[in-house]
Amino acid sequence: MKISIIGVGLIGGSIALKLKSKGIAEFIYGIDNRADHLKEALQLQIIDAHADLEYGIRNSDLIILAIPVDAAQKLLPKVLDLISANQTVMDTGSTKAGIVQAVKNHPNRSRFVAFHPMWGTENSGPKAAVSESFAGKAGVICNKKESSEDAMKKVEKIVESLDMHVIYMDAEAHDVHTAYISHISHITSYALANTVLEKEREEETIFQLASSGFSSTVRLAKSHPEMWVPIFKQNKENVLDVLNEHISQLRKFKSALEKENYEYLGELIYNANKIREILDK
Amino acid sequence: MKISIIGVGLIGGSIALKLKSKGIAEFIYGIDNRADHLKEALQLQIIDAHADLEYGIRNSDLIILAIPVDAAQKLLPKVLDLISANQTVMDTGSTKAGIVQAVKNHPNRSRFVAFHPMWGTENSGPKAAVSESFAGKAGVICNKKESSEDAMKKVEKIVESLDMHVIYMDAEAHDVHTAYISHISHITSYALANTVLEKEREEETIFQLASSGFSSTVRLAKSHPEMWVPIFKQNKENVLDVLNEHISQLRKFKSALEKENYEYLGELIYNANKIREILDK
Repeated sequence: MKISIIGVGLIGGSIALKLKSKGIAEFIYGIDNRADHLKEALQLQIIDAHADLEYGIRNSDLIILAIPVDAAQKLLPKVLDLISANQTVMDTGSTKAGIVQAVKNHPNRSRFVAFHPMWGTENSGPKAAVSESFAGKAGVICNKKESSEDAMKKVEKIVESLDMHVIYMDAEAHDVHTAYISHISHITSYALANTVLEKEREEETIFQLASSGFSSTVRLAKSHPEMWVPIFKQNKENVLDVLNEHISQLRKFKSALEKENYEYLGELIYNANKIREILDK
Repeated sequence: MKISIIGVGLIGGSIALKLKSKGIAEFIYGIDNRADHLKEALQLQIIDAHADLEYGIRNSDLIILAIPVDAAQKLLPKVLDLISANQTVMDTGSTKAGIVQAVKNHPNRSRFVAFHPMWGTENSGPKAAVSESFAGKAGVICNKKESSEDAMKKVEKIVESLDMHVIYMDAEAHDVHTAYISHISHITSYALANTVLEKEREEETIFQLASSGFSSTVRLAKSHPEMWVPIFKQNKENVLDVLNEHISQLRKFKSALEKENYEYLGELIYNANKIREILDK
């Protein structure tokens, strides 16, 4: 099939590479505001040509939005305006309630499938794209009933071609779960980076001492505000809810240390260890 | 040389494997309270024999303590009681001020070298040991002047054999820096795990959705309390200082979200991104 990818960055680029290697995509148009990204994507053979929005959409069976969630929410109604009944549109955004709400009453709503691949890195741009990124990860499809059966089948085929396992979820529930599983991790990582940058003035010492543990915890703090501010904005209520809980969990550690209650500190850690059973299932 | 390793777990085992592969250790005695660990370490050829404390020490050129920091602080004076002037003792603990204080006035103080390899994982026991663990990481030696020149040379040779680069540091300064670079990462990771376990009752959903980002941030939360409670206890003041700063950094994110001040939120993230320049130097 012919595919337009709007946003040829980390996610759009990785999808393109995988769909090409699987022979699913016979031709990929890249659509992007950034001329440098389009140039790189062409050089890296992520896309076959670049196109303007209308031309790309008109000539594609499938249109994939892979841009920040605020931009996607704004653009999606326009994309749906431009398509006909045999075309399908999917997004890849980290928040889902806002975007399904934005097209709820659009006459072409059923041609859209709301999708979120549970993969990403702290890097961005077409150079960061990796073909095997998604393998083994969850691909969440939201509000299945609001999409046409044939559009759904097309997207399910894409998700399986990415070697992901499909999970179906309500958009509101998705946003609650991702606040826990993904969004709060980014906030703790950003706050940890700011803590170290604030208090540890000797940058050379950070660099020299940084262990694999620190690098792992702070990795997500490299993620760009252009992507993450819109996510936090769209998922504000859920993120605040989890953030409040997280601060109160940190206060328990603080209190155990202040009171030198090391038995309680041990219990807090022992409880946290349970995450191993869940993650290593 | 002949070496006794007290504590044949992750760190002791990894050191043993590397020193054997480099031909530095001609014979390694394993000393451990846990019979199962000794048995495993023998099977895995991490040690050549197990020994009781006195026998092992009497027959070794170098004694390496690789046990939790509270146990090491208690045991080190006894080990120093048992050695003669041509033997050397080193530890591997994550806190350094307490242990150097504990032997400050010991007649054999100069035979001891305070060491901390900046590597570890969330796993424990001899099965978790990996020969190439330390390569490229920092190996911190504290209070160099309190050790004899020949003991220092022996330990420097060991650290270089582990393919680590040596950094010299005052023990108090070490504990301040590791509070930032390592200890706070563990607390945030534990608190994050507890947040998710508290709020996300659907364990199956955590498991299914858990992305690489979440796994990365929460990885350290798998680390055992037996190792970490003593570290937090010994480094209480520094850890509390950093923890307070971290909570206040998180509150900035909370306030930005509550006030819907997305420009400020973007600034906080932009600032956190600077950690990339330092880590990717």
